[in-house]
Amino acid sequence: MLILILICFSNHHASAQNVLSESLDLMPWPKNVEKKNAEFIIDNSLSISISPSGQGRVHHAAVNFLRRLSGRTGAFLNEGFPVTDQQGAIQITFEKVSNLSIENDESYSLDVGNSGITITAKTDVGAIRGLETLLQLIQNDGTNYVFAGVTVNDTPRFVWRGLMIDAARHFQPVGVIKRNLDAMAALKMNVFHWHLTDDQGWRVESKVYPKLHEEASDGLYYTQEQIKDVVAYADNLGIRVIPEFDVPGHASAILTAYPELGSKDGYDYSIERFSGVFDPTLNPTIDITYEFLERLFTEMSPLFPDDYFHIGGDENEGKHWDESKAIQKFMKQHNLKTNHDLQTYFNIKLEKILNNLGKKMMGWDEIMTANMPTTTVIHSWRGQNEGFPEGNSLISAAKRGYQTVLSNGYYIDRMEPVEKHYLVDPIGDVKLTDLERSRILGGEATMWAELVTPLTIDSRIWPRTAAIAERFWSQAEVKDVDNMKKRLKQVSFNLEELGITHIKNRDVIIRNMTDNQDISALVTLSKICEPLKIYSRNKGGIEYKTYSPFTLFADACVVDAEDALPFNRAVHQFTSDRSSVNASQVLAYLNSWAGNHEAFKKLTKNPKLTPLEPLSENLSSTALLLSKALESKSLTSENLTKIKEGMLILEQPFADVEVAVLDGLNNLMAFCVSHYLVN
Amino acid sequence: MLILILICFSNHHASAQNVLSESLDLMPWPKNVEKKNAEFIIDNSLSISISPSGQGRVHHAAVNFLRRLSGRTGAFLNEGFPVTDQQGAIQITFEKVSNLSIENDESYSLDVGNSGITITAKTDVGAIRGLETLLQLIQNDGTNYVFAGVTVNDTPRFVWRGLMIDAARHFQPVGVIKRNLDAMAALKMNVFHWHLTDDQGWRVESKVYPKLHEEASDGLYYTQEQIKDVVAYADNLGIRVIPEFDVPGHASAILTAYPELGSKDGYDYSIERFSGVFDPTLNPTIDITYEFLERLFTEMSPLFPDDYFHIGGDENEGKHWDESKAIQKFMKQHNLKTNHDLQTYFNIKLEKILNNLGKKMMGWDEIMTANMPTTTVIHSWRGQNEGFPEGNSLISAAKRGYQTVLSNGYYIDRMEPVEKHYLVDPIGDVKLTDLERSRILGGEATMWAELVTPLTIDSRIWPRTAAIAERFWSQAEVKDVDNMKKRLKQVSFNLEELGITHIKNRDVIIRNMTDNQDISALVTLSKICEPLKIYSRNKGGIEYKTYSPFTLFADACVVDAEDALPFNRAVHQFTSDRSSVNASQVLAYLNSWAGNHEAFKKLTKNPKLTPLEPLSENLSSTALLLSKALESKSLTSENLTKIKEGMLILEQPFADVEVAVLDGLNNLMAFCVSHYLVN
Repeated sequence: MLILILICFSNHHASAQNVLSESLDLMPWPKNVEKKNAEFIIDNSLSISISPSGQGRVHHAAVNFLRRLSGRTGAFLNEGFPVTDQQGAIQITFEKVSNLSIENDESYSLDVGNSGITITAKTDVGAIRGLETLLQLIQNDGTNYVFAGVTVNDTPRFVWRGLMIDAARHFQPVGVIKRNLDAMAALKMNVFHWHLTDDQGWRVESKVYPKLHEEASDGLYYTQEQIKDVVAYADNLGIRVIPEFDVPGHASAILTAYPELGSKDGYDYSIERFSGVFDPTLNPTIDITYEFLERLFTEMSPLFPDDYFHIGGDENEGKHWDESKAIQKFMKQHNLKTNHDLQTYFNIKLEKILNNLGKKMMGWDEIMTANMPTTTVIHSWRGQNEGFPEGNSLISAAKRGYQTVLSNGYYIDRMEPVEKHYLVDPIGDVKLTDLERSRILGGEATMWAELVTPLTIDSRIWPRTAAIAERFWSQAEVKDVDNMKKRLKQVSFNLEELGITHIKNRDVIIRNMTDNQDISALVTLSKICEPLKIYSRNKGGIEYKTYSPFTLFADACVVDAEDALPFNRAVHQFTSDRSSVNASQVLAYLNSWAGNHEAFKKLTKNPKLTPLEPLSENLSSTALLLSKALESKSLTSENLTKIKEGMLILEQPFADVEVAVLDGLNNLMAFCVSHYLVN
Repeated sequence: MLILILICFSNHHASAQNVLSESLDLMPWPKNVEKKNAEFIIDNSLSISISPSGQGRVHHAAVNFLRRLSGRTGAFLNEGFPVTDQQGAIQITFEKVSNLSIENDESYSLDVGNSGITITAKTDVGAIRGLETLLQLIQNDGTNYVFAGVTVNDTPRFVWRGLMIDAARHFQPVGVIKRNLDAMAALKMNVFHWHLTDDQGWRVESKVYPKLHEEASDGLYYTQEQIKDVVAYADNLGIRVIPEFDVPGHASAILTAYPELGSKDGYDYSIERFSGVFDPTLNPTIDITYEFLERLFTEMSPLFPDDYFHIGGDENEGKHWDESKAIQKFMKQHNLKTNHDLQTYFNIKLEKILNNLGKKMMGWDEIMTANMPTTTVIHSWRGQNEGFPEGNSLISAAKRGYQTVLSNGYYIDRMEPVEKHYLVDPIGDVKLTDLERSRILGGEATMWAELVTPLTIDSRIWPRTAAIAERFWSQAEVKDVDNMKKRLKQVSFNLEELGITHIKNRDVIIRNMTDNQDISALVTLSKICEPLKIYSRNKGGIEYKTYSPFTLFADACVVDAEDALPFNRAVHQFTSDRSSVNASQVLAYLNSWAGNHEAFKKLTKNPKLTPLEPLSENLSSTALLLSKALESKSLTSENLTKIKEGMLILEQPFADVEVAVLDGLNNLMAFCVSHYLVN
């Protein structure tokens, strides 16, 4: 009976969302929204008052709210700051200032009426979450910009809604981090996990072990002042910062600076330039390793005031341990049978160090071994790709008593479509006790940076991470993909006002590709091509180093290519219903592609463009033949052969991209074969 | 005889430049360039070696050189860092590391041959100037990217080649400053003048007087660590940083924090939100003012290691001095007859403070009064606009014994065409002794920030400042405007690889203008509209505050509108020679504008778009009528009346822009009247 009620509620919730979200582009979708027959007109007199007043998070958010509102609507506000001596049209009230933690209350209520707006929250962080919802309610009623009239009561489903940025493989300057923090806050995310060291570089100034940043960063590192600045910036947005210092593996950079900590004597440690899993590993059998980590973590801890501290712990294959007689001897002496046992020995020592510093130790799921105390936090990342059931380690961690966070399914660097991530629910259908459920803190999207630079990182994070943010905040029932995609379009556009470069940098790269010629031919191609998925960009052909160019066509292309879904859909509609409207939609795409190679050929060639020539040529020729078949309702077997030849070529990867309209083209070809084939 | 030789040389130089610059897009144009029958092919084996090696400026510049080269050409370099144990294909040699000062030798020689490239310089800074020239020599020979074969011997004409950025009116975050420093270095500029305080804000953390940043910055200021970081960043690029703390006028922010230093008792000082010249002024008659400045400058001095220190000193109208009995009494006691005398009294005391701190005091030209010691440096800014002859104070300062720097003529915030600045020569035809000439250090472009934000500032600085940089570096004879514009186009494009946003942010603003609809109609308009010039944007109509929106159509438009010059030229060609080719060029523009209003009308209107409607409509209707007249070779008086009505409307400013094709349209109309008018 209870189950039945839940199902009813779930359906009701989902359908109510579908109706409302036709007019409201809210993301993440709030727990409760009701539309009112009202709108609040935005004009120059708009003002905000905050109770209690002060210079804290809500003041800061309110000032930014006014700037963004003014920038978006063109309003010349009379009052550019919260008013203190009068009642603002927008009244914000909160009870207390948060100490950011997983206990923090982020709920808020928002009411938009014709003559006033109220935001009420338990905490200042709740209030700023409400301000972000309010910004998403700005609409144009034809004459004025208005806030749509609504009542919202909202609270997140998970307490841990994170984004990890890898600043080790490619360094990401403070400006990149800050604009992504702004975007995270706009999507109500609350954890920034900062991957700060790996084989390819150590990225934090250390005064205790200065060789780390001096010799293992190529000069690309954050000063301690910059770390403090970023942490304060995030705090102001209600975002916790979790640092990750990945040990004992992924240690090439650390060992470049301090080779005496390495597992293999006489090994020539150096900063790694390639991507992959490498052998350099800290030696867990010598005291100086723990002395180093204790002093280092003691130095780093105050920079990162959050309770949680991530020590990585992933992908240690223990090769150098196997090859070291001393380590093998140590393992025997201590009755450590496997490398896992040795790593557990290491992790337990690390956890003591961190506990003494007041930190909870967090690590990737490899650290969850039989003897690992349940005071550690398990970051679940391995899945099918690594030979494990999806999400398995998350549920098993929760059942075994660990707090746990899910990243499996949210690896945005795999370049997979947004729905693939959106539909991953951290819990799914698994039955858990309340206690077990409480240990599942939430999830994190992970932006590994082997193939991204400051120029491209935003377009790899956004907009897909906004959909993941919805998964972490909104109710499990909110999972209609089409509905999400419709709202995501608006959210993606609005991210640009925060300085996110995911839209504008496409043309930058294409201008570079063409040496500043007409970009239209390449723009057309970029709208139907996607970067190769699941790490295949780095397989076969050229292998990228950290200093290889990331200014190529694949870097201009994004997942969920702009014209791919509409074209594939148009073909589907046409093959279901051969109306002339449906035919003309398909033909519009085909004809634009058919003519595109003429434009491409006009470009003065250069070594960056040349690899795209077969793609451009075969797209045009295939589109032209399909277009002719559609228009004439006739396809000769000769042309069919040519189309098939073209499709064979288009099915190959070119210049690290794949064509994202193959489904549509193949379906169209099949349709033409069954309906139009002659002789 | 000497004069004749000079003229010959000058003509020779200019014409040699014209021939060479058809194939070379160098800017600033080097003192001596010779083209060789050679080219160096860029492939993955390209490498750099530096002698002496080390981690200094040249290493840093060489790494960035490799990244930019790789990004631009797509080369997958084997060696991403300078090679130390072998001879690189590019060999850089320098004699000593510079201490940045006006004495610094920035000359270099560059030789590009088929099999190797050498850069030789006296100093490391000279070497990095040479690397920038080398990057400008990258060309596509159809198959490969190559360095064009040349021999260059280069040295700057002026030792002070500056850009001032006003971070007070609108705060400019560190990222904005750094990317502009990168661009400056690409144009061989060597002085960053940082305007750090004004009526609208105080922008530096002060530990001695913390109320300055706490109460007079709206939270928008540089921490001292950020200042140090920027100064070190600039130093690495061979750029000196001159701070400006503007006193005794422009002091609203300082007096908001410390009203006791003000000239008017009981005045309610507050951060200014408007643009203009305001009354709040430090009180130069009380000891605490000097105590404050001495302690403040003592704190600030070590942050800015350069010899020069700018104290502003401009636009003090002395209104509050006139109104203060105490100040008037003081002036009588000290026999100070005018406010200028009182300001000189103030300046002389300031100079002593700064001299004790090892600094040369620099100020805007108002500080050059009769009694001002010649140890100060005069920054010439006033000209015709302020009722003075152009450049007058520069020459008079040099003759009177002051070191001096020119900004009159280089006020890029006036939104004037590039040639207007380019053709301002600091010395011109004035005869000076060698000593007098040596006092003219150079010049600075000034980016005042009343109407710019981080979103738009780059498009106000660049590309015009590149042409100003050429004025400061290159020989006086290099002044062919068309030639400069041809090279500037390439330079402007290449600035994008440094992160300069002047190109890409146009579409960002237009997307915002349209609420993410099709941007093509507005893009077309933006290519023929320019922001209002010479501060008229803030006259009449709406007055901008610091927090007003700068996300409007005028902010998307730039000086030297993309289609204006080509159209006006096409009309000129057509009216001189009515060939069908010339006619079709004109018609192509007219027809694209004639159809544009249809696209504009399709946009869902919003309050930002509505003010553009008459512009769009009248441009289309006028272009259509002119197009008809051209095509039919016939113009009725009825249509002429309509064209005139349309032109009258287009001559008005709309939404803070002006139409930049009026000349062409008017000439075309006049042509049609004299050739095609019927009845």
